[in-house]
Parts: sequence; C-alpha cells; structure tokens
Amino acid sequence: MELKPYYRKAQFYETDQMGVVHHANYIHWMEEARVDYMQQIGFPYERCTMEHSLDLGLTDINVLYRGMVRFGQTVVIHVAVTALSPARMTVSYRMCEAESGAICFEGESVHFFYDRVHDKPVALKRVLPELYTLFENLCQKG
Amino acid sequence: MELKPYYRKAQFYETDQMGVVHHANYIHWMEEARVDYMQQIGFPYERCTMEHSLDLGLTDINVLYRGMVRFGQTVVIHVAVTALSPARMTVSYRMCEAESGAICFEGESVHFFYDRVHDKPVALKRVLPELYTLFENLCQKG
Amino acid sequence: MELKPYYRKAQFYETDQMGVVHHANYIHWMEEARVDYMQQIGFPYERCTMEHSLDLGLTDINVLYRGMVRFGQTVVIHVAVTALSPARMTVSYRMCEAESGAICFEGESVHFFYDRVHDKPVALKRVLPELYTLFENLCQKG
Amino acid sequence: MELKPYYRKAQFYETDQMGVVHHANYIHWMEEARVDYMQQIGFPYERCTMEHSLDLGLTDINVLYRGMVRFGQTVVIHVAVTALSPARMTVSYRMCEAESGAICFEGESVHFFYDRVHDKPVALKRVLPELYTLFENLCQKG
Repeated sequence: MELKPYYRKAQFYETDQMGVVHHANYIHWMEEARVDYMQQIGFPYERCTMEHSLDLGLTDINVLYRGMVRFGQTVVIHVAVTALSPARMTVSYRMCEAESGAICFEGESVHFFYDRVHDKPVALKRVLPELYTLFENLCQKG
Repeated sequence: MELKPYYRKAQFYETDQMGVVHHANYIHWMEEARVDYMQQIGFPYERCTMEHSLDLGLTDINVLYRGMVRFGQTVVIHVAVTALSPARMTVSYRMCEAESGAICFEGESVHFFYDRVHDKPVALKRVLPELYTLFENLCQKG
Repeated sequence: MELKPYYRKAQFYETDQMGVVHHANYIHWMEEARVDYMQQIGFPYERCTMEHSLDLGLTDINVLYRGMVRFGQTVVIHVAVTALSPARMTVSYRMCEAESGAICFEGESVHFFYDRVHDKPVALKRVLPELYTLFENLCQKG
Repeated sequence: MELKPYYRKAQFYETDQMGVVHHANYIHWMEEARVDYMQQIGFPYERCTMEHSLDLGLTDINVLYRGMVRFGQTVVIHVAVTALSPARMTVSYRMCEAESGAICFEGESVHFFYDRVHDKPVALKRVLPELYTLFENLCQKG
C-alpha cells in the first residue's frame, strides 16, 4: 500500500508571541496525521470510535522539536506504526517544512485501546482483529 | 446572593504572533466564568451535564473586543444572566484588565438546553425546575 | 474572480464531551477560511502581517450556531467581504456540512487594521491601497 | 524557599468526545505550572520574555499519561527543575487528581534559551546569571 504523507498549513491562531507555532499544537498535528493515516489504510478512526466505541488512548508522548514553524508554512508529516503488540501500539511522526525540506519535528505516541462502553482497556487483536492485522502488516520496526 | 467575579490570568499559550491574547480564547474565558458562576449559585455545571445529561448548548455568541490583553495580565470577568425563558437563556460578560480596570471585552452567549440521552432540546423549566428558578431569581434584564 | 469555498474536516481534538465540535473552534475555522480567502485573491495574510507589519485586528464577532458538527465530518465554508470602509471591514461566513449540505453556522467578524510597528490602528485605504482595492472590488453588500 | 504546587481545574472546553481531558491540554498545564513556578521564585516569565526578550524554547517533551481527568476535577501540579547546564534546563512535572490523590500524569520538558532580538540560542548563565543562579539553587537532580 502506497501511503501519502499528510500536509498541514500552520495557522495564525497556532502561533504564540514568540512568532512561531506554539509547541502544544504539534500534538494536534500528530493526531491529525494519525487520523489521516487510518483513513488511508481503509479503517477511519471515526469507524473505530463511533461504530465500535473503541478509542486509541494515550500512554506516552515523546517529541523532539528540531526547528520552528511560522504562520503560513506547510509541514509534511510522515507517519508510521513502529511497534505493535495485542494491547499496545507505537506511532512515529517526522515533520519537515515543505518548501525547504528542513526537519522540524520528530515524535512518537504510545497508545492503548480503550473500550468506552465497558470503560476498560482491551486487546485490539481480540476486539478488532481486522484493524490489528492492518497495523501489523504496516508495522515498520523502528 | 453575593456573587464574585471570576479572575483569569492570560497564559503564554493563549497569545498569538501579534503579541496579545488571540481572540478565540475569550470564548473559553466566557465558558470558564459561566461555569464558575454556576458553581457559586450552588448548581455546578458538572452536576447538570453529568448527573442530568443536560448540556447548555449554544445558539448565538456576540462579542465586542475593546482592548488587548497581554501575557501575564489578569482579567476580571463579571457574569450575569440577562434574559431567560423556559427553553432559552442569555448570559452576559464584561471583562476588565485587573490592574488598570480598563474594559477589554463585552459579550453575550445565548443558550438552549440539550438533553443528551434523548438527543433533543428541552425546556429547562420543565426538566430542571430547581436550576430554572435559580437563574430566574438572578436574572438582570439587560 | 472565481473564489472557491474552504473545506475543513472536523478533528477529534476539536470535539468536547457533548460529542460534537466545541463552539470555540468555529472561531478558528472563520480565521482559516479568511486566510484562505486572502490567499485566493492574491494578497496572502502572511504578506500583510509579515512584510507590512499590518494585522487584521478584531472588534466584533457575531455568530449563530445552527447545527452540530461531529468528528470526521467536513464543513464547506463560504466567505465574503460584506462591508468596507477605509479603516474597517466586515467578513461574513456561512458553513454547511459537506455531505448533507445542511447549514451549521453563520457568522461575521468586524476588523480594524493595526500597524504593529507604530502600535496603532490605521486606515487600510491609505497604508495598503492595493489590498483595499481588492477588498472593495469583492465587497458584496449584505 | 517553600514552593507551592499549582492547582488547575479541568475545563469543559478541554474535554474531548471520550469524555475526558484531551491529552494535548496537559502540555498547556505544564506551561501554566512552569510559569507559576517562575513567579513563585521571584523571576516571572513575563519579565524574562518581555524585559529581556528571552524565551524558554522547547527541545523535548516526554510525558506519561497515568490516569484520565474529567471536567470539573482539579489537578495538583508539582514542578521541579531536575537538570541544568549553562544553555539547557529540564523541568519535571507530576500531576495528581486533588480529591483522590491519584497520580494522573508525569512529564518533563527540556528547554533552551532563545534571544529573540538576535534570533539565536544563548547561554542563560551568561545573559541572565541572576535567573540561572535561582534555578541552580532549586535544581533537584532527578
């Protein structure tokens, strides 16, 4: 499967008084790119969370800020599943400024799978094996 | 009942590259002050939304920006219910910079009452008469 | 000039515990659509704010919430300049859910023009006549 | 010096459709607690950024989500400087739900010092030795 990176233009409301995108917004961009990734692989997160009441909870976030992004610049976000076990998944992100290609951000998010109806963590492999297999086939050990 | 205004310090992440608080954040501050108001009158919004599955939906927001607020400044927010009918309520807000007293914002939000379980608007007067009476007694016709 | 509406997908982080997009985020979407509009007419806001140190400040926002938007839905945002004077401009917005076409939001923002270097409001007609003329030609009296 | 933890009430607009505070907001809370910490030690961040044009840039953020926080709950945030060199600083955070005392979050942010006027990283020890000494005296090696 040919996956496309996610393009995101930095918005004015995402800047802070330093004149660059505030660091918290990259967490939003990670989520947007992750959601786009799931859409591309054919299992939209909407389907996961709305039809199956299954949420991708967060356990860890680890990020490196490597360059500032300014209002109006576009970042290209590359996403990959880099670790997977029945009940846990690591997603990695690499963001570059589109025009110059300069890297501006690297990060990863570690997820668990949360059954909202029964209010408890579950094994994705058991509750949604179709999605688990999709992730498994795409997983690129870091 | 003696109601106290709500104090809110402007945060760094709320500024934009103009060097002042971004205009969208005042909508958050209106909500914070409205929530604080409900706590003060003895019917916390948590109780409304969690125990009764009743949300205060929004139909209108009208605001005037009258002065800029900078990082580290504190605003004093005065809240009042200024119109009330069985199914609708208007809340008004007046914000001043705490140190100088200069007015920086005036606004109002118009609300309907939304029953999340049955997914429909309801009359507050009918479903939560206790809260309706509280608002009624406090209502200051604008 | 043929202007295209702006498409915006509702993100997960924009929802609140009511299960719909939180009302403050529409203010962000208004800004995104306004920025896109300026790019389409050939005078990007980046150029305005970065090259000319000219910001579009806000004096008023008036909005009507007419329907809820859920995570994953796309809204189509139509933007128009609906009033213009040398020192002030009104921009109007109409948002529909893309799939159903149902209207979900109407709003307007009133702007002044702020010279960041001299820290004062200015007349756009005088300081950036090129941009003023662009807006003038597009202005659709409401 | 007796430093007090920072108390923060979770707001409605900070929740997402999972019914809990969205994970990106903890990054805001880290910042709020860091700003409060600097105020308590007698060198407010406002003074740093406004008088000295010195910003605390970010290089890394590493966080662990250990429990969900719901609307209306208050978190107690403990802050400590846990590493310091002339040009870099690590700040650590520990958040507990105030009522139960249950831990909900641990994190750290790594900072560099950015001179906005000359647009370059600088050594805090050289440009603001007064602040450097304050941090040095408080630094609790992790």
